[in-house]
Amino acid sequence: MTDSWLAQVKWDSNGLIPAIAQDYQTGRILMVAWMNEEALRLTVSEQRAIYWSRSRGKLWRKGEESGHVQRLHEIRLDCDSDVLLLDVEQLGGIACHTGRESCFYRVLRDGQWESVDEVLKDPKAIYSGKEK
Amino acid sequence: MTDSWLAQVKWDSNGLIPAIAQDYQTGRILMVAWMNEEALRLTVSEQRAIYWSRSRGKLWRKGEESGHVQRLHEIRLDCDSDVLLLDVEQLGGIACHTGRESCFYRVLRDGQWESVDEVLKDPKAIYSGKEK
Repeated sequence: MTDSWLAQVKWDSNGLIPAIAQDYQTGRILMVAWMNEEALRLTVSEQRAIYWSRSRGKLWRKGEESGHVQRLHEIRLDCDSDVLLLDVEQLGGIACHTGRESCFYRVLRDGQWESVDEVLKDPKAIYSGKEK
Repeated sequence: MTDSWLAQVKWDSNGLIPAIAQDYQTGRILMVAWMNEEALRLTVSEQRAIYWSRSRGKLWRKGEESGHVQRLHEIRLDCDSDVLLLDVEQLGGIACHTGRESCFYRVLRDGQWESVDEVLKDPKAIYSGKEK
């Protein structure tokens, strides 16, 4: 019965669910990543975002290398139970591996995806090489 | 060359990409739906959200029945080119088929998904029966 809230989540055919991370103060969408059941359980128990890295095939404790941890403030589930929304505090103010605040830094303008947000920190200075 | 921006989008194995709709004024996340290439092209050309309904297997002109059209203000693509973010004006102030502003109306509290947002309009009064 303890995990009935987990059982209500609709996982996709790969056992995953997309999770949107939103800045709890500004409302800015920071990124979208994926969670499996273990990642979601750990996210809630540790109160920080822990994703499932599809490319690396393992748990991804956001910020484990960069220090850019996402502290959990609230977690919501949508009406279809197949998307999660996390209100987070983004430590360091950088969510994207490119060194930007948000992964959504390209806007469609005049038929082109234009990068409009500044790089806050050189990715080489953020990572020692492993985390995306 | 006209559609090079479309060619840059990474569609999944079903030819789809998830699209987040965010209120352009409040920053509230309204819903997440899917687009195929045609839906994305139409969304941009008509400046309103047009999704691909996976359940019905056809284009879904958001608001076609309810009147709850989402006027497009801006569209962004994330660093992996596999998630879209739409800044929209939500006509009628209701995005969810349950009659709520947002599909993310359930919060995890004490191990339960608790509905915390009010129903603004009875779904029966919104739909004549077709749109989800």
